[in-house]
Amino acid sequence: MSKSFFPPQRTLMGPGPSDVSPRVLAALSRPTIGHLDPEFIGLMDDIKGLLQAAFKTGNELTLPVSAPGSAGMEAVFSNLLEAGDKVIVCQNGVFGGRMQENVERCGATAIMVQDDWGLPVDPDKLEQALVSNPDAVAVAFVHAETSTGVRSDAQALCALARQFDCLAIVDAVTSLAGIELCVDDWGIDAVYSGTQKCLSCVPGLSPVSFSERAITRIRNRRQRVQSWFLDMNLIMDYWGGDSKRSYHHTAPVNAMYALHESLLMVQEEGLEAAWARHDHHHQAFVAGIEALGLSLIVSPDARLPQLNAVEIPPGIDEAAVRRHLLQSWNLEIGAGLGSLATKVWRIGLMGHAANQQNVLLCLSALGSTLQSMGAAVNPDAAMAAAHEFYSV
Amino acid sequence: MSKSFFPPQRTLMGPGPSDVSPRVLAALSRPTIGHLDPEFIGLMDDIKGLLQAAFKTGNELTLPVSAPGSAGMEAVFSNLLEAGDKVIVCQNGVFGGRMQENVERCGATAIMVQDDWGLPVDPDKLEQALVSNPDAVAVAFVHAETSTGVRSDAQALCALARQFDCLAIVDAVTSLAGIELCVDDWGIDAVYSGTQKCLSCVPGLSPVSFSERAITRIRNRRQRVQSWFLDMNLIMDYWGGDSKRSYHHTAPVNAMYALHESLLMVQEEGLEAAWARHDHHHQAFVAGIEALGLSLIVSPDARLPQLNAVEIPPGIDEAAVRRHLLQSWNLEIGAGLGSLATKVWRIGLMGHAANQQNVLLCLSALGSTLQSMGAAVNPDAAMAAAHEFYSV
Repeated sequence: MSKSFFPPQRTLMGPGPSDVSPRVLAALSRPTIGHLDPEFIGLMDDIKGLLQAAFKTGNELTLPVSAPGSAGMEAVFSNLLEAGDKVIVCQNGVFGGRMQENVERCGATAIMVQDDWGLPVDPDKLEQALVSNPDAVAVAFVHAETSTGVRSDAQALCALARQFDCLAIVDAVTSLAGIELCVDDWGIDAVYSGTQKCLSCVPGLSPVSFSERAITRIRNRRQRVQSWFLDMNLIMDYWGGDSKRSYHHTAPVNAMYALHESLLMVQEEGLEAAWARHDHHHQAFVAGIEALGLSLIVSPDARLPQLNAVEIPPGIDEAAVRRHLLQSWNLEIGAGLGSLATKVWRIGLMGHAANQQNVLLCLSALGSTLQSMGAAVNPDAAMAAAHEFYSV
Repeated sequence: MSKSFFPPQRTLMGPGPSDVSPRVLAALSRPTIGHLDPEFIGLMDDIKGLLQAAFKTGNELTLPVSAPGSAGMEAVFSNLLEAGDKVIVCQNGVFGGRMQENVERCGATAIMVQDDWGLPVDPDKLEQALVSNPDAVAVAFVHAETSTGVRSDAQALCALARQFDCLAIVDAVTSLAGIELCVDDWGIDAVYSGTQKCLSCVPGLSPVSFSERAITRIRNRRQRVQSWFLDMNLIMDYWGGDSKRSYHHTAPVNAMYALHESLLMVQEEGLEAAWARHDHHHQAFVAGIEALGLSLIVSPDARLPQLNAVEIPPGIDEAAVRRHLLQSWNLEIGAGLGSLATKVWRIGLMGHAANQQNVLLCLSALGSTLQSMGAAVNPDAAMAAAHEFYSV
């Protein structure tokens, strides 16, 4: 016989989900109402406005897809691409590879522009690819690579896309509300994100936004979108601006309560203040990590404040460290992915979790755990460095 | 400036979402943990076992898709079909039409077998279609048509599919935990459902199950599944039986807590007892509705207890009735869909909402509202009939 599940109270400092605010959890559990209830329609309008603000866009077609970020990615590619299209995909980590998968499953061709994992996307390489592929219809890249902790220069990459008359498709799963992201100013045509990163909401929804240029393309497709569930032509009729909402699918009502509350918290703090907070605690964390004797694999100018890829010291069983942190400290940090597996830990400071307590907890827990396993680290220096940072 | 959203406390007696138990809402809001946390992996195993019991199946590949029922439908079709395949789709309402959409968007051909809305799928017509289309690879139909309130004879239809060596694909969105559904005994190869109907969980997940025959087909595809997000070849590695779980996408962790709790409630009550409870309150409701002077459009032998399509009396503004019920009674009932729009209300008695209080509330609210609008109804007789039913 099964019994009710009571999860442990973790501190989530992996690559997401991040710690969810009690306010968001409280909103999540409010009574369910119908997805066509006028009160719910009003909430949808409010979510749309708050999302537009978070994305810094006036795009009419801005909404949360009713599924996790991977589905948001698929919504973007499957709506914008048709069989035979050519797309330039810049890859510098796991999620560029997933973009390639999506492009190919739409029957389109992905021209891959590769950069080493741990480096940002190189605009020069993209420009070469654009010159060599004048028939490309879109450029796609990951703004904040969750697998490596790297920030690419989205503004420069989008400008290149625009210069060569390509749509600019941006993965902002980990960047939204964590670092500067300006959908309209940068000329982004399609962007998708997730709720479980710097919004600190529960996982399960994927905010997306499409420019007028992108909508024109979707409206004028020759073939139907291969996914019915993700077909924006249909979803627009449910999320549209008029009062008549056509039923498409049953929205995840309670998850929308939670998203609304998390967006409200971003609005209350101020988007720019949220970006600055992420950077502030990242600086404290880095000061501590370096004083501890460890290093980040990403150069300072390309680091994501919200996702820190920390090099694993030689001779250390990285999985044992994570297990110990989870079991003894209730602290989750992330493993490396793909070619960085066993080489880095991924330590998130996302949204609600980007705070002083978590920075100090992580430095303390990681330092003492590594010391107990014989690594040449200096936990006292780490704590001192972080304290000094915060006391300035 | 936006502010926190506090939904009204509705009684949900539409076509879903249905009323969610406070137990399920409490589970939903427990602290988020990581989707690769060992505690969460344990929960996944538990959910799988509980889902197998609810579906009455031993199918290894039984899990909730991380998106609403429409995505579950798409998961089934996009995994089982390849371009050029021929599928027989039986349609007797809205959702058979959605199946056709899905089949065609996979590049496959849908041979449509049409029955009038309000009637069950006719096995004889299916048999004729099977004889005429010996190259069909699958038969698909809706077990419980939410748009009409009709139950089709899933067992007979699946037997026909098997006889003609076709896979049997069943939409059980509204049937799971509400009426008899025996995936293994009936020879169902692929089935999908929703959480927001007779499980009385929040909307957003879609339980699915695939037979060994279906898995073999998925494993031996010539083309990749066109959806990366829904590709069962990848999802199996996350939901697989061994302890090594490969990351695919971030699971909607809190929604899974809620699903687990709702499945637990089914287990505690007993699946057969839940079916009987739905039938019991349906009988009371019908007694009341008929005494009120209204009628159901579906003949008694094909009625779904959990979804009652009530004919709208002549001269009544059906939308005004629903609006009044919502505003003055906080009671949601559903409008007709498609060809039944403005002809019926759809009144759900699903899961947690299938109880005596809701039956009496609905009869009372609907009766007095119709009377105030001048309809020839007898509210006192309706209440008397329901009370008599319950007092026997």
